[in-house]
Amino acid sequence: MSATDVVEVSGHIIDSLILAKILDEIIEAEADYKIVQMDVGKTPADLSRARIEVTASNDEALAALLARLHPHGAHPVTQPDAELVAATMDGVLPAGFYSTTNLHTAVKVGGRWLDVENPEMDCGLVVSTDKTMARTAPMHRIRMGDLVVCGSEGVRVRPLERPSGRSPFEFMASEVSSEKPKALLVAEVSERIRRARAGGGKLLAVCGPAVIHTGAGPDVATLVREGFIDVLFAGNGFATHDIESNLLGTSLGVSIREGTGVEGGHANHLRVINEVRRWGSIRAGVERGILKGGVMYECVRAGVPFVLAGSIRDDGPLPDVITDVVGAQDAMRAHVGDIDVAVMLASTLHAIAVGNMLPAGVETYCVDINQAVVTKLADRGSHQALGIVTDVGLFIRDLAEHLTRG
Amino acid sequence: MSATDVVEVSGHIIDSLILAKILDEIIEAEADYKIVQMDVGKTPADLSRARIEVTASNDEALAALLARLHPHGAHPVTQPDAELVAATMDGVLPAGFYSTTNLHTAVKVGGRWLDVENPEMDCGLVVSTDKTMARTAPMHRIRMGDLVVCGSEGVRVRPLERPSGRSPFEFMASEVSSEKPKALLVAEVSERIRRARAGGGKLLAVCGPAVIHTGAGPDVATLVREGFIDVLFAGNGFATHDIESNLLGTSLGVSIREGTGVEGGHANHLRVINEVRRWGSIRAGVERGILKGGVMYECVRAGVPFVLAGSIRDDGPLPDVITDVVGAQDAMRAHVGDIDVAVMLASTLHAIAVGNMLPAGVETYCVDINQAVVTKLADRGSHQALGIVTDVGLFIRDLAEHLTRG
Amino acid sequence: MSATDVVEVSGHIIDSLILAKILDEIIEAEADYKIVQMDVGKTPADLSRARIEVTASNDEALAALLARLHPHGAHPVTQPDAELVAATMDGVLPAGFYSTTNLHTAVKVGGRWLDVENPEMDCGLVVSTDKTMARTAPMHRIRMGDLVVCGSEGVRVRPLERPSGRSPFEFMASEVSSEKPKALLVAEVSERIRRARAGGGKLLAVCGPAVIHTGAGPDVATLVREGFIDVLFAGNGFATHDIESNLLGTSLGVSIREGTGVEGGHANHLRVINEVRRWGSIRAGVERGILKGGVMYECVRAGVPFVLAGSIRDDGPLPDVITDVVGAQDAMRAHVGDIDVAVMLASTLHAIAVGNMLPAGVETYCVDINQAVVTKLADRGSHQALGIVTDVGLFIRDLAEHLTRG
Amino acid sequence: MSATDVVEVSGHIIDSLILAKILDEIIEAEADYKIVQMDVGKTPADLSRARIEVTASNDEALAALLARLHPHGAHPVTQPDAELVAATMDGVLPAGFYSTTNLHTAVKVGGRWLDVENPEMDCGLVVSTDKTMARTAPMHRIRMGDLVVCGSEGVRVRPLERPSGRSPFEFMASEVSSEKPKALLVAEVSERIRRARAGGGKLLAVCGPAVIHTGAGPDVATLVREGFIDVLFAGNGFATHDIESNLLGTSLGVSIREGTGVEGGHANHLRVINEVRRWGSIRAGVERGILKGGVMYECVRAGVPFVLAGSIRDDGPLPDVITDVVGAQDAMRAHVGDIDVAVMLASTLHAIAVGNMLPAGVETYCVDINQAVVTKLADRGSHQALGIVTDVGLFIRDLAEHLTRG
Repeated sequence: MSATDVVEVSGHIIDSLILAKILDEIIEAEADYKIVQMDVGKTPADLSRARIEVTASNDEALAALLARLHPHGAHPVTQPDAELVAATMDGVLPAGFYSTTNLHTAVKVGGRWLDVENPEMDCGLVVSTDKTMARTAPMHRIRMGDLVVCGSEGVRVRPLERPSGRSPFEFMASEVSSEKPKALLVAEVSERIRRARAGGGKLLAVCGPAVIHTGAGPDVATLVREGFIDVLFAGNGFATHDIESNLLGTSLGVSIREGTGVEGGHANHLRVINEVRRWGSIRAGVERGILKGGVMYECVRAGVPFVLAGSIRDDGPLPDVITDVVGAQDAMRAHVGDIDVAVMLASTLHAIAVGNMLPAGVETYCVDINQAVVTKLADRGSHQALGIVTDVGLFIRDLAEHLTRG
Repeated sequence: MSATDVVEVSGHIIDSLILAKILDEIIEAEADYKIVQMDVGKTPADLSRARIEVTASNDEALAALLARLHPHGAHPVTQPDAELVAATMDGVLPAGFYSTTNLHTAVKVGGRWLDVENPEMDCGLVVSTDKTMARTAPMHRIRMGDLVVCGSEGVRVRPLERPSGRSPFEFMASEVSSEKPKALLVAEVSERIRRARAGGGKLLAVCGPAVIHTGAGPDVATLVREGFIDVLFAGNGFATHDIESNLLGTSLGVSIREGTGVEGGHANHLRVINEVRRWGSIRAGVERGILKGGVMYECVRAGVPFVLAGSIRDDGPLPDVITDVVGAQDAMRAHVGDIDVAVMLASTLHAIAVGNMLPAGVETYCVDINQAVVTKLADRGSHQALGIVTDVGLFIRDLAEHLTRG
Repeated sequence: MSATDVVEVSGHIIDSLILAKILDEIIEAEADYKIVQMDVGKTPADLSRARIEVTASNDEALAALLARLHPHGAHPVTQPDAELVAATMDGVLPAGFYSTTNLHTAVKVGGRWLDVENPEMDCGLVVSTDKTMARTAPMHRIRMGDLVVCGSEGVRVRPLERPSGRSPFEFMASEVSSEKPKALLVAEVSERIRRARAGGGKLLAVCGPAVIHTGAGPDVATLVREGFIDVLFAGNGFATHDIESNLLGTSLGVSIREGTGVEGGHANHLRVINEVRRWGSIRAGVERGILKGGVMYECVRAGVPFVLAGSIRDDGPLPDVITDVVGAQDAMRAHVGDIDVAVMLASTLHAIAVGNMLPAGVETYCVDINQAVVTKLADRGSHQALGIVTDVGLFIRDLAEHLTRG
Repeated sequence: MSATDVVEVSGHIIDSLILAKILDEIIEAEADYKIVQMDVGKTPADLSRARIEVTASNDEALAALLARLHPHGAHPVTQPDAELVAATMDGVLPAGFYSTTNLHTAVKVGGRWLDVENPEMDCGLVVSTDKTMARTAPMHRIRMGDLVVCGSEGVRVRPLERPSGRSPFEFMASEVSSEKPKALLVAEVSERIRRARAGGGKLLAVCGPAVIHTGAGPDVATLVREGFIDVLFAGNGFATHDIESNLLGTSLGVSIREGTGVEGGHANHLRVINEVRRWGSIRAGVERGILKGGVMYECVRAGVPFVLAGSIRDDGPLPDVITDVVGAQDAMRAHVGDIDVAVMLASTLHAIAVGNMLPAGVETYCVDINQAVVTKLADRGSHQALGIVTDVGLFIRDLAEHLTRG
């Protein structure tokens, strides 16, 4: 009645905790294991490799367990081709579809391993009809006839290995806390951005409206102007308050220069949205010389692409906002493949949305004064995200200083 | 050079703090005032009335100050007709448009005061071409030719007066805190819901996914089944996890009955979304007998209308989700006019979006474990919202018990 | 059966909300009122005055209501002498003792009004045996025979009137939020500290250990060295980590310069405490040339007095820590009378303890990354405290820069 | 120049992550390793054992690294006797003292391994003069002549192995979050308390004042009366508000039954403290029949020992409060050895203080509405603490129901 299979895993599986997690999954599933072969890397540089015989109470339990081991990179020793099932409806995956991780993934088709082009979490895996290419596809983009991978047989993933070397972030993996030496963290983040950019890496900034409210708009504008930001994702609020602060000197009606409420200021953001709707687009306002500064202005001037995604709490919204959320996701997806570093600034909604889209390898910094946001991002699977609990206004100002004075 | 006008205000202006706020606005604007007449209500039941001569440094400053006094119900003694300007573009208000509050509002047209039908914050005010009706209109619904009120002359609002009488909530106006006697608060909220319903009032529930994660789904389902909830607003996550918990017994992959992760469970919500997409709608799943319980099921069965609004962090989404955020707002607006009590349960995004739409008179309870959410709702102008910082799972279970056992 | 009295109140009672609060208290107590006389200040500069006839259901209810009106400065028109009762035990007040506020207070004895010397909240009010002086006394300092005021007759308080004039803080009274322009707030706080000091005012800094953990120790040390801090209150943790960071370069074992954990670092704070115990005192370490920098070093060098108060979570503690909490309170009391401005930095426990001791007139800034702490301080009655929700490390660095570069 | 040693570790070192952490420490210390021998447990039940040759750049670095490996249970293969140094001053440990963990510990003296009697974190290790017993001693209890272990040679610790088996808590180790099925967590905690008690285990409750404010006082009183709580730790605030709510029906002046402020109520806690001071002790009030209910009453009646520890924010305090914090710690220490389960209820200060004292094996539940508190407890080393982010009032009521109805 009981069912058995042998899985294999290799890499820095001991110090990256991978082997421990695998054994943990087996024990939690109330299955048994025997380590049938184990080559432990003798030195830090050596890879280790383990073959583990797994025994569960029945075939179904075994299949379930293998599915749990899968994201840790433990795969059956001999793998058949992946099962491909053609979609029978647009926008719907075949039942039993393989649900993707954001890890580097390969799929076995016709005896060959195909690398998946664009790792993204929570998607389907589609193999081209000529079986030479594999890509992830979000559910809504499935078209009838697409060949979709079902089950996890014939799929391999490569789990992230923790980078070695000490850094101010090492202790943050386990502990997201506000009680850290912040000046050091700023310096380290700016150093990593520099390093990534030196290697041709691209930086994505995801901005919430608090960036403007806390007075950091001009600093982000500087980063855009000086070429540090390659893509900007935000919402209606961020763009509106950025323009409001440049046209009217207020953010949500509060004076940016004096910190005090302004007469009639509570309607300023509506007046700004209304005017931009009259212009037809933010770009039109820049070109007509009406909008002369700020983050959105600098994006238009520098040709930095931006995606403004709609939300149900939007007033207006600005004409540049993509009000269809699926359309907005697709617009973001078009940029995500190029990104090497992502900085998420005081933006719960966008941080989680973008975090879900990024491949596991993208270095991600999530900056928020609210510890729960940072924790939530990690909870959702973006384990590569490093959380920094601090004041986003002061953080950005320091980051801009570090990056631009160099 | 200096400019002067006389404003009048009446009501329980002293104990409702209204007069104090008016004088405060004048002083903050660095203007002068003389109280030219003051009839103080001699007893708690009597209304008070004050006429205040306001002097600002110039016409512009005076106009700005009058605009600030406006939402407190202080209006110039003699008011001309409101200025009406025809919109020249679809979706764009005339410059200088009057930006609405969520208070009871009247507009003077042809010497008559018209009551505004549907008070909503941050909209324009449109008068019918025959000048017999006035309504609010969000920016995107303006059509070329619409007669839009500009400036605040000829517009009156009636500020909320605080209800008198003592209650467990009295101290919450100023202090949102977790350290309150929670059982009492639950009892009081349920008592108020009963009272509102006894008078024919309707209840809106706005639900976030934590309602399901914390195990309160069955309690909300009971409230729908037993007729306590008249309208439901939520997002893709709430509906998905509700269905997931009923079809598969998990919420975001965690067993609702055992609290433990389930093999392969991380993909459960995707599988559920995919199946509902195959059905075509939630209703279809109910009618085919596949979906047999839960909040969404009960809504379909009881004919309780629901609006599922899209967000950029959505997977799928469910076919019932309105992915265009402006369309989703309009769908919610269609229900908002009937509501007497709103309960917002662990839903930051929806709570703020809905809070922006509700008239000031709707009794609103915002329940969240995160104090910042509750504070944020009040900051956005929904001053009638009473915040309760507690565990939403335990709160709902107790609320359902109170309401259904009566 | 019903009971009536006439109370009088004067000041800027309308725009400081005082009259409104008084009527509110009456209504909440389900009593009736008649405003028998009301002179409204015609201009912002004029004082207003009101006489209110209050009627409650019986003598007891009236007495209770008068006690509630008392802290708002509304006192019966004719006041008898205060009732003085001699304490019959050390450390115990007579039953019915008048419980003090932190407001300016006067007590009527022998027909004369005596100003209370040292307003402090939650104390008793003791009149000297020759009836020429009145002072507050915390319960534990009462000695048998002390003449203690009982009831609230014959006691007057003067409520705080809100300062007029606009400032970045105006909107913070009602809304403690993290979404504020922080650079402006820093500038404003430093300006106010400068102004207070220019007038001879003294600054109290209350510091939690996060000041050191976030890397701001050197900035606080600079502020002490340059004479900006006149008194320092802290606990064992702050002083220990300050010394640890100067002797060993770590704070709770984390390198201040590199942000990384240090081998054996988890015991560093214990080793530091142990060594200071060997020296006998912090001063001894400075004098022997072992401790050469940091906040505590600068305090010793500059003769800035400090109080280190013990807590049950202390390791060691340092020999300078006052382990008896009542003794520690008394040591703090000895300094509190001189203070004009208090800055509370990331220190929940000490912020609340010190907030309870300060007279209402002390300008207080409470800086913490956790909104709940700031709210809690205000809840406890320190209404003059302005909360700033931000990263304390970045805040102090900026504050030190502002103050020292001037 | 480089230095080498061989360490050995055994246990469930792979699935408990112990081996991974050891290799991690070595790599972070920039040292090299060779795994010279590795016996991997073939099945979940088998122990594993590893011998690792560690090479650091010099003797000092090696010693530091060995100190870091020590708490993971990796000790040099051959261990000499521990070095014992006599203390030369009361209250001061010898420099180089071994700083204890809260793990099961043994020390080698005269070739024999002595088990340490009372594991406690952050203490010294004292061997009796006849070298037959070893115990931990907090710094202040060291007496001149005490034989204190220095260095980590000759000391072994046994790291905690994670319990196997699935539970609602399994996912909480890594994720402290408010979005969990709370009813399940309550059921699980009560089940574990039952199980512990069935085996003769003792329960410690650590209570903050919010327990009373949120209305849970009667539930805790029930738990004491019915014998579920064996020891109670709290502060002046908890005991005062418990007595206040029983004598006067309020908690911090807010009516427990109606949730509204009571006339003069802000002074109620002071009046209560004052009366208890007059009685002389809480027990005296119970014996005289004045105090007739509540948590403290039930403790006195049932003979449940309690420790009330002082804090600088205390008013009064109650005569039962130990105002010397070192004395209070020692009073708590006297009870800590017997405890099997600890429940910390809304008490930041006490939770951390007590957490520091408990041996690693004590099952600890930390319940708070503020996620930061729960995280902070884990950060301080109490890794066995399971955090539950919820409303403490509702949690306790449910827990009491579960435990008492059984």
